[in-house]
Amino acid sequence: MLIVMQHGATPDQVRRVVAVIEELGYQARALPGKQRTAVGLVGNDGRVDASRLETLPGVQEIIHVSKPYKQVSREWQDEPTVVHLPGGVTVGGTEIVAIAGPCSVENEKQIIDTARLVKEAGAVILRGGAFKPRSSPYSFQGLGRPGLALLARAREETGLLVCTEAMDPEAVGWVAEVADIIQVGARNMQNFSLLKAVGRCGKPVLLKRGMAATITELLLSAEYLLAEGNRDVILCERGVRGFDTATRNLFDISAIPVVHKLSHLPIIADPSHGTGLREKVLPMARAAVAAGADGIMVEVHPNPDAALSDGAQTLYPGQFAQLMREVRVIADVIGRRVAEPAPVGA
Amino acid sequence: MLIVMQHGATPDQVRRVVAVIEELGYQARALPGKQRTAVGLVGNDGRVDASRLETLPGVQEIIHVSKPYKQVSREWQDEPTVVHLPGGVTVGGTEIVAIAGPCSVENEKQIIDTARLVKEAGAVILRGGAFKPRSSPYSFQGLGRPGLALLARAREETGLLVCTEAMDPEAVGWVAEVADIIQVGARNMQNFSLLKAVGRCGKPVLLKRGMAATITELLLSAEYLLAEGNRDVILCERGVRGFDTATRNLFDISAIPVVHKLSHLPIIADPSHGTGLREKVLPMARAAVAAGADGIMVEVHPNPDAALSDGAQTLYPGQFAQLMREVRVIADVIGRRVAEPAPVGA
Amino acid sequence: MLIVMQHGATPDQVRRVVAVIEELGYQARALPGKQRTAVGLVGNDGRVDASRLETLPGVQEIIHVSKPYKQVSREWQDEPTVVHLPGGVTVGGTEIVAIAGPCSVENEKQIIDTARLVKEAGAVILRGGAFKPRSSPYSFQGLGRPGLALLARAREETGLLVCTEAMDPEAVGWVAEVADIIQVGARNMQNFSLLKAVGRCGKPVLLKRGMAATITELLLSAEYLLAEGNRDVILCERGVRGFDTATRNLFDISAIPVVHKLSHLPIIADPSHGTGLREKVLPMARAAVAAGADGIMVEVHPNPDAALSDGAQTLYPGQFAQLMREVRVIADVIGRRVAEPAPVGA
Amino acid sequence: MLIVMQHGATPDQVRRVVAVIEELGYQARALPGKQRTAVGLVGNDGRVDASRLETLPGVQEIIHVSKPYKQVSREWQDEPTVVHLPGGVTVGGTEIVAIAGPCSVENEKQIIDTARLVKEAGAVILRGGAFKPRSSPYSFQGLGRPGLALLARAREETGLLVCTEAMDPEAVGWVAEVADIIQVGARNMQNFSLLKAVGRCGKPVLLKRGMAATITELLLSAEYLLAEGNRDVILCERGVRGFDTATRNLFDISAIPVVHKLSHLPIIADPSHGTGLREKVLPMARAAVAAGADGIMVEVHPNPDAALSDGAQTLYPGQFAQLMREVRVIADVIGRRVAEPAPVGA
Repeated sequence: MLIVMQHGATPDQVRRVVAVIEELGYQARALPGKQRTAVGLVGNDGRVDASRLETLPGVQEIIHVSKPYKQVSREWQDEPTVVHLPGGVTVGGTEIVAIAGPCSVENEKQIIDTARLVKEAGAVILRGGAFKPRSSPYSFQGLGRPGLALLARAREETGLLVCTEAMDPEAVGWVAEVADIIQVGARNMQNFSLLKAVGRCGKPVLLKRGMAATITELLLSAEYLLAEGNRDVILCERGVRGFDTATRNLFDISAIPVVHKLSHLPIIADPSHGTGLREKVLPMARAAVAAGADGIMVEVHPNPDAALSDGAQTLYPGQFAQLMREVRVIADVIGRRVAEPAPVGA
Repeated sequence: MLIVMQHGATPDQVRRVVAVIEELGYQARALPGKQRTAVGLVGNDGRVDASRLETLPGVQEIIHVSKPYKQVSREWQDEPTVVHLPGGVTVGGTEIVAIAGPCSVENEKQIIDTARLVKEAGAVILRGGAFKPRSSPYSFQGLGRPGLALLARAREETGLLVCTEAMDPEAVGWVAEVADIIQVGARNMQNFSLLKAVGRCGKPVLLKRGMAATITELLLSAEYLLAEGNRDVILCERGVRGFDTATRNLFDISAIPVVHKLSHLPIIADPSHGTGLREKVLPMARAAVAAGADGIMVEVHPNPDAALSDGAQTLYPGQFAQLMREVRVIADVIGRRVAEPAPVGA
Repeated sequence: MLIVMQHGATPDQVRRVVAVIEELGYQARALPGKQRTAVGLVGNDGRVDASRLETLPGVQEIIHVSKPYKQVSREWQDEPTVVHLPGGVTVGGTEIVAIAGPCSVENEKQIIDTARLVKEAGAVILRGGAFKPRSSPYSFQGLGRPGLALLARAREETGLLVCTEAMDPEAVGWVAEVADIIQVGARNMQNFSLLKAVGRCGKPVLLKRGMAATITELLLSAEYLLAEGNRDVILCERGVRGFDTATRNLFDISAIPVVHKLSHLPIIADPSHGTGLREKVLPMARAAVAAGADGIMVEVHPNPDAALSDGAQTLYPGQFAQLMREVRVIADVIGRRVAEPAPVGA
Repeated sequence: MLIVMQHGATPDQVRRVVAVIEELGYQARALPGKQRTAVGLVGNDGRVDASRLETLPGVQEIIHVSKPYKQVSREWQDEPTVVHLPGGVTVGGTEIVAIAGPCSVENEKQIIDTARLVKEAGAVILRGGAFKPRSSPYSFQGLGRPGLALLARAREETGLLVCTEAMDPEAVGWVAEVADIIQVGARNMQNFSLLKAVGRCGKPVLLKRGMAATITELLLSAEYLLAEGNRDVILCERGVRGFDTATRNLFDISAIPVVHKLSHLPIIADPSHGTGLREKVLPMARAAVAAGADGIMVEVHPNPDAALSDGAQTLYPGQFAQLMREVRVIADVIGRRVAEPAPVGA
């Protein structure tokens, strides 16, 4: 931590900063400069209370050198986390996983048909919302608990694993009974009560980046999960808010190598929400895999024109099959391979 | 709703769009142009399912003419909503209210001292977090329920009303027992489970704008509250995410007149979070009131240097007193007046 | 300057960094931490070549403690710059100046009528574009040099000073012959060839903030002007790019106190471009003055409905007169006063 | 064009809008809705003056259905533009071109060594700045005209084509004498005087997207070039301003398929500026090609640690060679191939 003094800070003010640092139990080292003096705090163990320092007279700003997160960092654990899912599927190792399915679970036929279609094309995990966060209270909000039962049925039928969202602490229990991966949505990335509940639920978690979240904030939200003892955390880039309305969101593919440098956690990409436009999903799924994503999450529906939500960004089954063919070749180029679905009953 | 056809759309494709509109029970009206044809949907009652149309062949985009929110709009209710609080305080009428207090409730002495100080300067509502959303799991998270009891004590002592945050549906009940206004924080603006619970709690709500929320999304989140029957909703601008690190957030004062045009709900401004810098709080509080804010929310602490959170943006008591003096004169300029605190026991 | 080492940096790597710092002629001071070591560079005179250091093995990042600008900073000159204009008008002192006029000069009658109207209401400087930067090549681009002559005529008639834009180095000479203040537009804030030409032209400059410019970049562009010997620089906040289409730009009023803290240069605000909406101009002009702006720049037209450009954000004359009345009272509240136009021939 | 009336607009106000549309020579068609009436303008030829309409009483907003650009659009020309360069290199067809070289031309040895290295790895075009736009007036600004001569020397030695930037209309002539492609930098994307000069220079143009430019604005700036008669325009995505400081810019790879849908012009990607971090250049170059980029532009230096500018984002020669190997395989996956450099003297 570096305490930068104002240009005209007096020697007394510098001494006061040094004294407070020592009071807090750390060492201080002054760095005089032509423009201003800075004081380095030596031995920062991540528990220094910066607000004590930043309000001292003559202090201009505090510069943080240490990262605010710990257990999610590469410095805490150098080797990548590999999340082990039922049936031998892994996320974060050599395999690239495809998670696919409708925005919302609508009825038994729809979810089972979709599960079969996406499995045939190469998905290993079925997505589908039973609880749907919607901007408007008047939009379809999902089937709720009956939707969870339909997801379980689809898993029985196809052997696909299930990834679905929990929106509040109360629903975490219900979702955890059914899901193989519990999703925390972008709008809830900093819903800390939910993070704590999910951190204790005993199931792997897919944590989506919030629309205005920095990578540091995404990692801090993941830290909430690890701090509760849940180490099976998969991050997901799904587009941030941008100024151009040409796409629904600004799909920040650079987040993938940035996260891989800072953290040992796997990160997948969701080009459906990332762009909001069906015809951009294929090129951006290729791009995400080329950039090193550990998986992709894609919206697919047997009949997108009749989907109850997100129709415009949902792939036709044929498009998803093409996407999987393309992604397999790109995976190969960078020394990885796409996880293959298990035969039913295997 | 306007359905814009692609440049090369065929007459058959246009006819198909017209047919689907009529199937849905509306009237269609074609608008041929030099570049492309558009089809107007006549009689939109806000329940048209756009996804049915946007995926038809030859359709380029759907342009929404109607607003997605209803009860919060000026068109639903032209006269401004005035929220009536205990003791005769109102928000949204002629009065401008000052809400002040520490970021977090720390102990009895701190909260009661602060309450007295801010009341003396002219605040009518005490703020203070018992439950604190924090980016890091290792930061101070508030005193929890004992913090609520201390807020109640401060109210008894000073007669100030209490505004404090609920972070999850479970806590809404506890907070509603104590608070005069329940706050929904920026990170929870789209926590729809929380919004529904708060919408049913029977207490006025302060809804803060999310860091990447458009005004439309803010109003839609307010719509969740009204849809549950709670009409006592106060909006709050507190800064959005910007690209310049010179301030903590980008304080969007224009949101105040924009909201006043679109909605009948009152809107206040929080220059403490809006800027994140103590010395910017005074000019920006003046600016917000000059722009028409129905109130201001400001962090004040008897000793900001020792505050457990947000010290750097928290005012010294003397600064807050000066702020109130300046705000009073500006209120006068624009034909309003600052609400005065009631004497204790009144 | 602080050179932050990677977590696992070796002692040899740290020694190498120290050696390079010493080679460059500065002192190095190591700051070991629990997470990582940092090395402080002591005696930075603003000429350190960071790229030599940031690419050394084991270096994670360079943190700049010194500001990259010099002559524009408060540390270079503590007292505010007061720009003296003909007729005794000053910008940056006690007075608040009003600059008003049409987006574009259209014809003699229009510009002289506008000049009279805005002078009567209290403007001291006439704005009006002869050269207009337009996003589309098919939009009206201004009258060019004949427009400059019309501005000179309007000055003769009314005694108002003239502020108008130069878009390229060639036009700087023409504009400087006529203008009392040369404007550099937002799109040209980092047109460095233009900045150099304007820096040498001998006239005061109004430098508008670019749509994606940080305050640091705005100050660096001003530094180009001072580095060429032109100290009469007035900055202008006019809105940055935001994610919400509810307003044309995101009017960043906080930039006013931020600039005043970092720099001695005056800063005015342009609520017409800042919001893009006529009805938001009044509240935001009040807000800017309340926040400490040294002036306001506003688009006014005798008949906005017939304006050749920017009609939707242009005030009717009566609205501008009201704006001036409101701004005068707010100026008074914060201990300033609005500059009054001189009588013609004075 | 759709003129949306306010909720309470009177029949007289609607009739007035209809009358003005007819006065302007177009047809009007009213679209009554439950919430409000809209009036469609039929026959828009792109020359409608919206400001006449948007200021009429009762009008709430104007919605533009037509695109503001023409010659750059897919509707104007459906088949992709293929830019033909000397030596048979093409941009926008099947080939993917690699443009590589240092940020700045520093001296003869540096530029010739770099040219040889990047050619050997597979680049066909040499980049290198002789005129450098720099945020600070105190940074190295390039060698100027002597730098152009060195680029010409490197071309003679290696047969590589030359792409270099012009920063003002005066320099366009000098640059056009030497360059095979003239670059317009991001900061000058809306420097319309420069665009006009470059549009008349007779050489192909590389137009970089501005840091806050929407795709529509990028295409409008390209329209300036086509409107001057220059059809050899190559667009370039190089990152936009984002809120996260984890990367220098936010590299918007989605812009590639978005541009390809809207325009016939080729678009390449610059992952060096797009990320600002050397180790992110490889994954993001792969991603850009996977998303359909018509080329990549990469900073390479024989010794990045000693580069006079942009060292931290500049590749070592070995990294560039690896990048080219990876990009070749990805190109193959999507049915394209990387353009190969001609032998010298061929």
